[in-house]
Amino acid sequence: MEIKVLKNVMIKNNSIGADNRAFFREKAVLAVNLVSSPGAGKTTLLESTIDKMRSKYKVAVIEGDLYTSRDAERLEKFNIQIVQINTEGGCHLDARMVSGAIKEINIDDVDVLFIENVGNLVCPASFDLGEAKRILIYSIAEGADKPQKYSTMFKTADVVLINKVDLSTACRVDVDHVEKEIRSINDKALVLRTTAVDPHSLREWMMWLEGEIERSKKSKD
Amino acid sequence: MEIKVLKNVMIKNNSIGADNRAFFREKAVLAVNLVSSPGAGKTTLLESTIDKMRSKYKVAVIEGDLYTSRDAERLEKFNIQIVQINTEGGCHLDARMVSGAIKEINIDDVDVLFIENVGNLVCPASFDLGEAKRILIYSIAEGADKPQKYSTMFKTADVVLINKVDLSTACRVDVDHVEKEIRSINDKALVLRTTAVDPHSLREWMMWLEGEIERSKKSKD
Repeated sequence: MEIKVLKNVMIKNNSIGADNRAFFREKAVLAVNLVSSPGAGKTTLLESTIDKMRSKYKVAVIEGDLYTSRDAERLEKFNIQIVQINTEGGCHLDARMVSGAIKEINIDDVDVLFIENVGNLVCPASFDLGEAKRILIYSIAEGADKPQKYSTMFKTADVVLINKVDLSTACRVDVDHVEKEIRSINDKALVLRTTAVDPHSLREWMMWLEGEIERSKKSKD
Repeated sequence: MEIKVLKNVMIKNNSIGADNRAFFREKAVLAVNLVSSPGAGKTTLLESTIDKMRSKYKVAVIEGDLYTSRDAERLEKFNIQIVQINTEGGCHLDARMVSGAIKEINIDDVDVLFIENVGNLVCPASFDLGEAKRILIYSIAEGADKPQKYSTMFKTADVVLINKVDLSTACRVDVDHVEKEIRSINDKALVLRTTAVDPHSLREWMMWLEGEIERSKKSKD
């Protein structure tokens, strides 16, 4: 019974996720799902990214968190559209939550929608939110063995940002080895090295992101 | 229906957890549940801890992991009893899994049983395994805001080890502030500062642990 219920939940989630994706495509909005362990740097990456792009593109954010709105508060300074989802202890966002949050956003005034998921390297992997791209932020401080151990998350990512690379020496972690471990699980993902607090390290990430936004906008024309 | 099933799951888990706890008490085994985010240092802490105590106490380990036995392999050098549980993608250990694993252990030859949970700061918080003590390993690299954001996990911990404190400067995190944030959520927990790779930093942790093992042994006499 438990398994059957879970299966029904997933089927329903995937159906709503597909609706969300169709909606984003119709509106030419690039929807990006940011996933990671707690404290890997999702919000800091968002801060640096939004700061760099907001003069050029219209940005909105859906913030997922168990109980607080701390991350949303960090982004208020940018004067962009932000919707907070509190899962009340729930371990991931799902497509229905995102579908509800979209209704709070003036989507015609958005080029790119960042969806910051709950910090969790397990459960969010299984829930399609309707995003166009899934970005995994992987802190070097977590060590090199996580791609094997949390393989579903690494397999389903379109981009993996190896973050906090400035800490690699202090953490005794070899970044080349980390990258190799990631590629052994997912040889299609774009793998980049970043230090989210250092905007200079985000050049390739920003180039990729802007390329995707432009592609998304063109697909409407 | 979904909620009802979840409620049934929790009631059943708590019942099996209580049975496990009664069994451990009868056998005078201190059962310890180690929880954390991925890569916070659970296995490294276990390595250092077991190395320090194995001449004095009989140690066994239940290793929880989604798919791999990597952590168990790291502990093989100690020549202790180890049972691997693979959750096959599941996001936490539950009491039934532990109940099954116990059957594989010669429990009369154990003083302390470490149960290393799946790396996840959300789901394992809600599942009592029958442990006597729950230890949360919190890596300083995760930042200072996690106690508020993942409050259930911090509320249910008996001990919080602020780990990787050697990285605090590099991570721009103030350890005093982290400790304050933890205490604002849980003012009963024992909070210690550790660097799991440095055995010298584990003095207080080892003292607390040995005290608990002795208390557990005495309760049988």
